[in-house]
Amino acid sequence: MRIPLAARYADYDTKGHVNNAVFLTYFEMARAAAWVEGCGGSADFSFILAEATVKFVSEAMIGQALEVEIRTTEIRTKAWIWSYIIRDASDQRIVAEGSTVQVMYDYERHATVPIPDALRARLAAL
Amino acid sequence: MRIPLAARYADYDTKGHVNNAVFLTYFEMARAAAWVEGCGGSADFSFILAEATVKFVSEAMIGQALEVEIRTTEIRTKAWIWSYIIRDASDQRIVAEGSTVQVMYDYERHATVPIPDALRARLAAL
Amino acid sequence: MRIPLAARYADYDTKGHVNNAVFLTYFEMARAAAWVEGCGGSADFSFILAEATVKFVSEAMIGQALEVEIRTTEIRTKAWIWSYIIRDASDQRIVAEGSTVQVMYDYERHATVPIPDALRARLAAL
Amino acid sequence: MRIPLAARYADYDTKGHVNNAVFLTYFEMARAAAWVEGCGGSADFSFILAEATVKFVSEAMIGQALEVEIRTTEIRTKAWIWSYIIRDASDQRIVAEGSTVQVMYDYERHATVPIPDALRARLAAL
Repeated sequence: MRIPLAARYADYDTKGHVNNAVFLTYFEMARAAAWVEGCGGSADFSFILAEATVKFVSEAMIGQALEVEIRTTEIRTKAWIWSYIIRDASDQRIVAEGSTVQVMYDYERHATVPIPDALRARLAAL
Repeated sequence: MRIPLAARYADYDTKGHVNNAVFLTYFEMARAAAWVEGCGGSADFSFILAEATVKFVSEAMIGQALEVEIRTTEIRTKAWIWSYIIRDASDQRIVAEGSTVQVMYDYERHATVPIPDALRARLAAL
Repeated sequence: MRIPLAARYADYDTKGHVNNAVFLTYFEMARAAAWVEGCGGSADFSFILAEATVKFVSEAMIGQALEVEIRTTEIRTKAWIWSYIIRDASDQRIVAEGSTVQVMYDYERHATVPIPDALRARLAAL
Repeated sequence: MRIPLAARYADYDTKGHVNNAVFLTYFEMARAAAWVEGCGGSADFSFILAEATVKFVSEAMIGQALEVEIRTTEIRTKAWIWSYIIRDASDQRIVAEGSTVQVMYDYERHATVPIPDALRARLAAL
């Protein structure tokens, strides 16, 4: 799944490039699209994040349009991994890449739960 | 000029609605569109902000698509006012409105400057 | 009440100064201190924001320590106004000033409510 | 080096806990302290970030004071690793941990450079 990223002026730091922490927000935007559109989930996520990794590959300067690709790269009993590539939309240069581990979570019972089968199928298709 | 707002999960606070400070960021997103697309300006703004006002009219809850309208409502020698209305995209309910005062600025000379005529015409058309 | 502001690198924009929207976050930090320490309230606020205004007076460049002063400037039946001055901590130069209107709110009943007397006294003392 | 973290209301998300991307900002606050106070560097960093990893260990709920510990865990020719532990200040429960890889960078020449000896000694002492 590929999504254009609507960058904001406030995303850029004193060097004129995207602040490092914002990349986790970009990953979150990709997750929101994958979760709501790809998996039919709610905008208020039903999972928790266990881990996140970002590699900063090249600079994303202000005025350069970005896009993010998200793919499911592993599915376990209760958890799955999403991998991300952020590219410059004009020339497909890789700006950053990374991954996050999600764990299915029941916010009412405050407990991790297995991934439902229907969701598993949709995750696998991403 | 009307622009759909790409909200982010991190925009929402513990009450499930858009954090108050984020509305100034939404105004900034509208300004970026007005400046770059409407006025032919650079993504790295050539003006400074002198004042900003926001009225919080109704709640913007997570999952509700928003849009922002920006209009030029006053043009002076060196400054102009942009006014904003943020609406729920589904029913046009007003979520917030406000305005900002911009002053034309030469970042190399560190001085305010008059609005060039060509820009004045484009601002008036917004 | 005066509070030192812990600025963050991400608060600064491509011009090297504090992004405009961040000032509303600085006001919010002052409100949190005024509410929790000054009024004995919960970190999860019991009021809503009706309006916010900021005047950007001078630049806050990276590396300059800031502080914020918050005072109650008006108390009505259900609402009150807090006014803010943000200063450079080294020379007391004013960086920004503004105000916000708060309305007492019952988040369970989803309704505005009168300011309790005990709170009114504490607000008046701020 | 241990630093108390000044959390902001806007750091918390709809679940009432610190948004995942904010932890990279908390790491950045620790880096700023380590760089400016620990290494005598400028508030406008002289390095780039190559990689960042966060493990989300337990929830940081609103109202809970946090602190961050930063230590140098590896020093190479041009790069070094800082490791972070974020704890609940009241009971020392670990909330998150992670690391970042920094590369010494000359922003004028747009090139990576070796770590100067004086800096190397200060990094080693952190």
